[in-house]
Parts: sequence; structure tokens; C-alpha cells
Amino acid sequence: MIGEFELIKKLTAILEDNSIGDDTAYINIDNKVSLNITCDAFLEDVHFLRRYPPESIGFKSISINVSDIVANGGKPLYSLISLMIPDDIDERFIERIYEGVKSASLFYNLKIVGGNISKSSKLGIDVFLIGEVDRFVSRAGANVGDDVVVSGTLGDSYAGFKLLTSKKQYEEYELRLIERHLRPTARIDYINHIRKYASASMDISDGLSSDLWHIAERSNVVIDIDLNKIPISRELRLYASKENLNPYDLALSGGEDYQLLFCQKKEHFNPFLDNTVIGQVVEKGKALVLVNGKELERTGFDHFKNRQ
Amino acid sequence: MIGEFELIKKLTAILEDNSIGDDTAYINIDNKVSLNITCDAFLEDVHFLRRYPPESIGFKSISINVSDIVANGGKPLYSLISLMIPDDIDERFIERIYEGVKSASLFYNLKIVGGNISKSSKLGIDVFLIGEVDRFVSRAGANVGDDVVVSGTLGDSYAGFKLLTSKKQYEEYELRLIERHLRPTARIDYINHIRKYASASMDISDGLSSDLWHIAERSNVVIDIDLNKIPISRELRLYASKENLNPYDLALSGGEDYQLLFCQKKEHFNPFLDNTVIGQVVEKGKALVLVNGKELERTGFDHFKNRQ
Repeated sequence: MIGEFELIKKLTAILEDNSIGDDTAYINIDNKVSLNITCDAFLEDVHFLRRYPPESIGFKSISINVSDIVANGGKPLYSLISLMIPDDIDERFIERIYEGVKSASLFYNLKIVGGNISKSSKLGIDVFLIGEVDRFVSRAGANVGDDVVVSGTLGDSYAGFKLLTSKKQYEEYELRLIERHLRPTARIDYINHIRKYASASMDISDGLSSDLWHIAERSNVVIDIDLNKIPISRELRLYASKENLNPYDLALSGGEDYQLLFCQKKEHFNPFLDNTVIGQVVEKGKALVLVNGKELERTGFDHFKNRQ
Repeated sequence: MIGEFELIKKLTAILEDNSIGDDTAYINIDNKVSLNITCDAFLEDVHFLRRYPPESIGFKSISINVSDIVANGGKPLYSLISLMIPDDIDERFIERIYEGVKSASLFYNLKIVGGNISKSSKLGIDVFLIGEVDRFVSRAGANVGDDVVVSGTLGDSYAGFKLLTSKKQYEEYELRLIERHLRPTARIDYINHIRKYASASMDISDGLSSDLWHIAERSNVVIDIDLNKIPISRELRLYASKENLNPYDLALSGGEDYQLLFCQKKEHFNPFLDNTVIGQVVEKGKALVLVNGKELERTGFDHFKNRQ
């Protein structure tokens, strides 16, 4: 079967719509307000396991959508939730998922205004989110000379996922990695910076290598990355050294970090955010991603091809 | 396990939000635009079977959401689609679903602006729809003296479903009933009437008896219905007589008609719409539905309790 990205292209062609291709969709209502809207399904055995804490399932289902809204320069406002509930789940489990949804809505200052409930064979939460956007920042605006910037540290979520599915007793640094996987925090602290300064932006959900290619292709630019500049947490270094892995491989290929990847003019670097310049846009007119001068392989996670 | 309506109440309480309870949620952005938004998941083996024509699956997934938007006085504008796709479905099947989605988007004059795709154990389409609303018409505004009105005819979809799952060769009238189930048309021809004149409104998705109770409870009124006035199609009469069933039972209990149920002042009856006055609002201060003077049993369909 073909992958997610190719299928999206085919279905987009059926709708004869070429506006699809960012983390969120931009809509303007009567020239009065500009909104960006998104939906992301969060499904049992695809995106989470039922043994995870239900509050974290609820929290993360909101975070992954807030992350998309923020990536395009929006501020999250309103949400609807589709809950898909199997017969064999008890009511308390569902209530605990909703307690996580509530924590997230308070944390992100958004309002859950409705939704619907269906029976289903597997547990699922599909979140729809509406944001308000002054300036929609797509993946397509990167310019030659721009810095390529990421927020936070990368690879933690993937290490957390591996730990969560391989052992039962954890050291403290391992628990912090697991926390990053179970309860990622969307970067609402970047909203003002992104909407003011980013030329192109997206969130890192598939994995940095795959997402760098998305920016390069949509902006039609050559991006040159310095591998050693990719931000790695102390916890990921410990994990990688213990497992005999290269932490930079994990940072490039591990998905679900929900950090931001954006381009901006050099002078707009913000020393008050936990951001890191990892490279530059060096050429316009073709799509390419170089790491230390060599073409970067796309090793990112395609949920559609690599099912758990 | 508890039913859908009780669970929604509990989850609403967790969110400390009492705005939930209509077919769509009303939101106002910066006092500039008023929108109503909704989502409804459409899932294999819960809401449809995989052997249905895929174009009809796509079409209906949009219709059921448009119906909600129209019921509250809105005009559908933009949609996002979450597709959940199992491994064992071929690409052409998904494309044909999208062709149905496209027909619906052209028919309803709305724009599909994005969505997402996930792997899943069962096929599913979760549609998110945004409408623009001049005056939000809830279930709560019915007044004493109002006529109780329905659009179209009722019970056809349920008969179509029964035919579809019981036999293979059909007569022409049976095919028309099946068509009502597979490809219901949301009543966009009522948009202007509802937004101008309805005091309370909803769509008939669970079944008339259940939905009459929703209006009675939210408006806190007594509704008196005349059974013989409930509009029954010629096709349903034929079906009921052949099956030895009472067509009025089918019209009261069968769900998924996606017709409108609304209240309005007597003088606002519109002779140019296929609508029927089935009763009156006779008292305010308590919730009750009477049919021919007797309390109406709620026999509507609760997807959550009565799984296929």
C-alpha cells in the first residue's frame, strides 16, 4: 500500500484543491476574521496503548492539535472532540481521559465547546481545533539566508516510547523521557515569535529529517544543517550511551517531539526562548536537505506505513 | 454500560461547560463573526457496512454534518476530514469515498480545506464542519402556541436500512428507500426559513420520538403531537404494509432521516417547503411529549446503546 503522503496527494487531487499541505488549513470568514483549523485523530494501537495513563491520552490528544495551530502562527481558541469508545472500557477510564482533556484545555487556555460519542472497536479521540491567526505562516516561505531553528530538544519522545514498551522499572532520567512521550507540551510560548518573525514553520511530529524535507519541498529551497547543532537533552544522551545508539540518529528519526521547526532572518534570533539555530537556507530553486554537506535521508515516521 | 446521553452529561460536567447540548456549538470570534461548528464520526460496523457503495459512505459522512449545521440556522462553509483506514482496504476504495465527499461538497457548496489520515482497525470518517450563523437556533426556544413542524417524510431511512441488510433483489420503491438510507440529503433548502422563523430546531437523527423529547426537555415545554399528521412516504406505506408493520412506528423510532424538526409561530408556515405541522407546543414549565394525548415513549436510536 502507498504511504500517507502519496495518498494525501491523490485525495487532494480528487478535491481539486491545492491549499492542502500545511499543519493547519487557513480560512478567512467574510474578510473579518482569519482562522486556522486542524484535526488529528489519536487512536489506540496506532498512536497510544490502552495501558497508558488515561489522563495522558486526553492531554496528548489536545497537545498534538495545539502544536499544529501554533506552528502556523495561530492561537488556539475552540475545540470539538469525537470520542470513539469500545464496549470493554469502563466509564471511569473515559472520565479520566476527559480529566486530561480538561487539564490541557486549562493549560492552553482553549474551550471545548462540544463533540460527539460513537461506539467503536478501538478507543479513539479525534480532536478538531480552531485557532485565530494574524498572519498564517506556512511551510512555503523560507528564504535564502534564513536561519533554520528548532525549539526544545529532539528525540526524547522516541526514547520515551522505546522505554515505555521495553521495561517496567525506570530510573529518574528515563521517567523524564517517558513523560515527554506521554504528555508532550505544545509550544504556546512561541506563538508571538512565530507569528511575528517566522518565514516558514511547522511542528516536528514525523521526525526532524522528514520535516526538514517538507519545508525544503514546499519552500523549494536547499537547507544545510550542522548535525552537531541539533539540540539533544542530557536525558537522551544518557539513554543513547546506555543503549549504544547515536543520539543524533534518534533526534533526526524519532517522531512526536511536537517541537517547532521554523525559518527566520538571522537578526530575529530570540535569546529568551529555548531555541537553537541548526542550519541555514542556502539556495532557492530546488528542494534539498544537506547535513554536514551530504544529502539527508528521510527517516521520519510515517504512521501510515509503519504501523505499531 | 450507561447510554450516550448520560455519558455526555458526565463528561460535560468534567469540563464544567453547560453550553453543550445542541447539534452544533456556537462560537463568536471577537464580536466579528458568529459560527456554528460540529463533528460527527461515521464508522464502519457502527454507522455503515463496508459493502455499501463507497461514494455513498463519503456523501453521507458530509450530509450528517451539514444537517446539524442547518438545524441550528447555519450555512455550511468549511470542512476538515479525518480518515481512518485499515490495512485491508485498497486505494481505489478510498478514492471512491473521496469522490462521494467531493459530490457532497459541490452539492452543499462547502469547501474541504484539509484533514488527516491515520491507520485504524476499522474504516472511519470523522467530519468537522464550520458554518456561518446569523442567529443560532437552539433546541431551547420553543414557545407556547408554536407549531411543531417536520421537513420531508420520516421512517424511510430505517426501512431502507432493513431492506439493505435483509435481501439482495429489490423492487423500485425499495431502492428509493435504500437510497434514503445510503445517501441522505441534508435540508439546505430550509436554511433561510430556519434562521428567520424557527424558535427551536434540531435534525432528526436519533428518531422522531427521541428528538421530540430533546426539544421538550431543552425548551421545558409540553408538546402535543397528532400521530396521523406525521408525514409518511408512499414507499414507506408500501414497505410497512408488505412487512405487516405500522408505518407510524417506523417514523417515530427509525433514526437517520436527517430531516428537520422545528417550532415556529403559526403564521410562519411556509407553503413552498415540503414541511408538515405535526402538533403544537401547549404548555411551558415542564417537559412532556404527548401523542394523541398520551405520553410518548422514547424509542429513538441511541448508537451508543444499540450497536449493530
